[in-house]
Amino acid sequence: MFRTHTCGELRISHAGQTITLAGWVQRTRKMGGMTFVDIRDRYGITQLVFNQDTNTILWESANKLGREFVIQVSGEVAERSNKNANINTGDIELLVTVLTVLNESKTPPFTIEDNTDGGDDIRMKYRYLDLRRNAVRHNLELRHAMAFETRRYLDKMNFLEVETPVLIGSTPEGARDFVVPSRMNPGEFYALPQSPQLFKQLLMVSGFDRYFQIVKCFRDEDLRADRQPEFTQIDCEMSFVTQEDVLQIFEGMVKHLFKYVKNIDFVESFPRMTWADAMKYYGSDKPDIRFDMKFVELKEEVSGHNFVVFDSVPYVAGICATGCAGYTRKQIDTLTDFVKRPQVGAKGLVYIRCEADGTFKSSVDKFYSNDDLKIIADKCNAIPGDLILILAGEIRKTQKALNELRLEIGEALGLRDKNVFAPLWVIDFPLFEYDEETQRYYAMHHPFTSPMLEDLPLLETNKGEVRSNAYDMVVNGVELGGGSIRIHDSKLQNEMFKHLGFTPEKAEAQFGFLMSAFQYGAPPHGGLAFGLDRFVSLFAGLDSIRDCIAFPKNNSGRDVMMDAPSVIDQSQLDELNLIIDIKE
Amino acid sequence: MFRTHTCGELRISHAGQTITLAGWVQRTRKMGGMTFVDIRDRYGITQLVFNQDTNTILWESANKLGREFVIQVSGEVAERSNKNANINTGDIELLVTVLTVLNESKTPPFTIEDNTDGGDDIRMKYRYLDLRRNAVRHNLELRHAMAFETRRYLDKMNFLEVETPVLIGSTPEGARDFVVPSRMNPGEFYALPQSPQLFKQLLMVSGFDRYFQIVKCFRDEDLRADRQPEFTQIDCEMSFVTQEDVLQIFEGMVKHLFKYVKNIDFVESFPRMTWADAMKYYGSDKPDIRFDMKFVELKEEVSGHNFVVFDSVPYVAGICATGCAGYTRKQIDTLTDFVKRPQVGAKGLVYIRCEADGTFKSSVDKFYSNDDLKIIADKCNAIPGDLILILAGEIRKTQKALNELRLEIGEALGLRDKNVFAPLWVIDFPLFEYDEETQRYYAMHHPFTSPMLEDLPLLETNKGEVRSNAYDMVVNGVELGGGSIRIHDSKLQNEMFKHLGFTPEKAEAQFGFLMSAFQYGAPPHGGLAFGLDRFVSLFAGLDSIRDCIAFPKNNSGRDVMMDAPSVIDQSQLDELNLIIDIKE
Repeated sequence: MFRTHTCGELRISHAGQTITLAGWVQRTRKMGGMTFVDIRDRYGITQLVFNQDTNTILWESANKLGREFVIQVSGEVAERSNKNANINTGDIELLVTVLTVLNESKTPPFTIEDNTDGGDDIRMKYRYLDLRRNAVRHNLELRHAMAFETRRYLDKMNFLEVETPVLIGSTPEGARDFVVPSRMNPGEFYALPQSPQLFKQLLMVSGFDRYFQIVKCFRDEDLRADRQPEFTQIDCEMSFVTQEDVLQIFEGMVKHLFKYVKNIDFVESFPRMTWADAMKYYGSDKPDIRFDMKFVELKEEVSGHNFVVFDSVPYVAGICATGCAGYTRKQIDTLTDFVKRPQVGAKGLVYIRCEADGTFKSSVDKFYSNDDLKIIADKCNAIPGDLILILAGEIRKTQKALNELRLEIGEALGLRDKNVFAPLWVIDFPLFEYDEETQRYYAMHHPFTSPMLEDLPLLETNKGEVRSNAYDMVVNGVELGGGSIRIHDSKLQNEMFKHLGFTPEKAEAQFGFLMSAFQYGAPPHGGLAFGLDRFVSLFAGLDSIRDCIAFPKNNSGRDVMMDAPSVIDQSQLDELNLIIDIKE
Repeated sequence: MFRTHTCGELRISHAGQTITLAGWVQRTRKMGGMTFVDIRDRYGITQLVFNQDTNTILWESANKLGREFVIQVSGEVAERSNKNANINTGDIELLVTVLTVLNESKTPPFTIEDNTDGGDDIRMKYRYLDLRRNAVRHNLELRHAMAFETRRYLDKMNFLEVETPVLIGSTPEGARDFVVPSRMNPGEFYALPQSPQLFKQLLMVSGFDRYFQIVKCFRDEDLRADRQPEFTQIDCEMSFVTQEDVLQIFEGMVKHLFKYVKNIDFVESFPRMTWADAMKYYGSDKPDIRFDMKFVELKEEVSGHNFVVFDSVPYVAGICATGCAGYTRKQIDTLTDFVKRPQVGAKGLVYIRCEADGTFKSSVDKFYSNDDLKIIADKCNAIPGDLILILAGEIRKTQKALNELRLEIGEALGLRDKNVFAPLWVIDFPLFEYDEETQRYYAMHHPFTSPMLEDLPLLETNKGEVRSNAYDMVVNGVELGGGSIRIHDSKLQNEMFKHLGFTPEKAEAQFGFLMSAFQYGAPPHGGLAFGLDRFVSLFAGLDSIRDCIAFPKNNSGRDVMMDAPSVIDQSQLDELNLIIDIKE
């Protein structure tokens, strides 16, 4: 070992001991005949002292050390006269008697500090240096701890981690697969799994009873800020369970992680909200319930006042922004611009200021008397000093816009504190989702999701109302995971395929293999999958998943550090029986 | 939950309780008015009793149950009159009052028993049924336990598990990469990693200090019995360590696994053997030291007796098969045939029987007197009753053949008990390996392996003699893992490239990226990787890694269960800018 201690380990109790450290030069300060060097490793920083009077040659060597040189030093631990309360080793320093340069370093292209001077692009190109920064490394330490505690909890609960294959068959349904040409099977391709869904259900057929896996999944999609072509799931499945059992077990897992990783104890059960209520009160299937500000439906109250904007639409709803009556015209204009952005999509914004004297000032005074506005304000539970913001239009679109507005206001009011965590189960998801474009229903989750038995009669009459045994775990408006109880009965499954518009042939082609397996005694089963990247981001308080991934890819799916993907040798293409043909 | 208990849980202490089980029908026995059904789940088997007199309708339902039906049963736990000591639940049975068929099953194509009637092919096609067999599931439970305990040990030792990317850049050196066409970067390909070697060394440059990962790796090689296109490694790397530190930490890991998974305590340090000794005494870099039977070099003793076979070759060596003097002519002929097989490659086999009366009988009596043979026997420490077997020829080839013969004899003598484990570090591997075909030296491990400093002068004069700081963990003749201390010094690395025949341009093209990283302060580092599949196979006593993998591929790289790889849609090929062109 090149060291007796780490750079984060020495305390006042070590004073007088002769020890050896190894690490990187964080910085060097020359103060007259004394040179102070901060040596850094994963565990911390220790101050080294070189004294010209004691050892001139050594002192001169110390003065030549550059940033990020790798050094080994020995000496005596001494109490510092000038203690630094900001670091764990701040009570001591090392009086160096031996200095060895283990490796030199070129000057890094950005500083290795929490607030680095490096921009995103350069940091990604030199990711191996970026990873030296505490801020980034802490995210990966957190990731390790979360994965480890997940395994510890699930192992204790009798789950078996089973590795499922990465080279699998391609399924044309759903998102785009990454494919892998097979050299040994010319003209054929493997696919990389978008999830181990098929395999985990097979493992239930195999009687594995409780399965999990922390596993890489792959999706060849155009990337957004929080998407990566490869991502990691905590994938789980259980047999002989109802929805309640699954929620209990995984609520336990989430609580375990909060407790052992974040030191936060959730004693009470997590709240549950139906999908219908989530849409009605928050306009989102992943409501951020750190703050209230529920939607108030106002169609009845606002109708019949000759305000055509409200009269002509099916849906009018508002939110009450506590204490915001003082918002200036300019602030309200900014909010109006916000809701009119194409991503939000509202046509305009109506406001009602609840003045201190009990009167109201609104953008629709022409149509509504003070008494009319009072009725609305009362319904919104608004009191003097509050600001009511109202949107109107087609129901889903307007709910979506009002959700965005609610989040924006919540952010502005400081109600979305990253250190406050508000978990929520969203349950009773619809089984089907109607697609306007193709004018047909699709499975909202996937075609194996079990419908709620009491809703089965609606299958023929009102597909859109059929609820499923599907659930999502939402924290702070982030969907951490979701799953469902699966259909284990072949007859019901075939009926579902019919309702999803699959011909028996198409169902057979795509899912025949799983359906065959189900004929050999499939147990009732269900499960869920968490997105580990998002889970870590949430715990780390990050806005993007990128910084909790050691070597992420950019929005074009490129690893700019190693410059991948890249062209391959013609001989490789030949072996794979492939010709590249780039269309213009 | 569909059950109150599992099928492996009930004991005599539960007698009198009303409970519910769920599981699969293992078998049904009708004995007069009583029907006994064994219900099975992952945890065990419980006997169910249906009594015609108590409930005729229920009894009739029970009689209709087929093998592998999924059922739920409730009733009272009762003490068995006829106890079964072979199973944990053998003291009790369940007097069933409620029976629900949760799912029917077609008759499986083979029996779900430890000794199934299914052949390899049918078991692989229906792998989801094969996995129901205890024998197979136990292997995967073992695998889970080993992965979990590996993580528990390494976490305790301050290792961080860091996920490295699966979609990386292709490197033409070494084994063949699987590649993945990039849709977003037309004409370019990702590769799947053969190992995270590059990334773990970068993480050391990043100051991660102690890294590990249990990770899928990929190699597009023609497959052998113990190879799979995707396999799992326990990949590890440490900074500021010497070889001794690495050996200590990972010896600790192997001992931890033996202790917590196999309940075997290794108190003593594992023996270590230099590669040179391993070759000299066992003819293998992974000697099986469960038994002795070391090679004895006999060139000196056998020379000069006009036996041209021995006189004309550089190397003659024998092994002493204890107590085998009684081997018949036929047995020795079989051994001769064995060593002459092309895989073993010897030209012939010389034997010396050490008779009970102190005389010798050999196949070379014409050339050697009894006294001559006694000298040989004495050197072999042979005593009356032993059989000496001698091979001769070119040194490496003959050592290899004698190794095969030694293992064959060891097997025949029952010296290779699967329940006995003999771990061994093989150290001091040569740095270079000479390839006869291309007439040049290659890195035996990889080009980043650090040479032993005292051997550096030999670089110019005798490359083949240069030893490296490389090591393998061998148990029972199986190489479980290996690694090395890496070169962290750019100058030495460039010198190594030169000696490996890389032009600076070629070195830059292949490794430039890592070499650049090394210029920013690479710490001294080293590590190793274990093959998890082999490790589990060893613990499970399996001959092939296939049965410790949930969904393995066959020798053509095919998953016969899901029939992958397969052809993909033309639209997929178009999106990827690829044309398939199969040459005849």
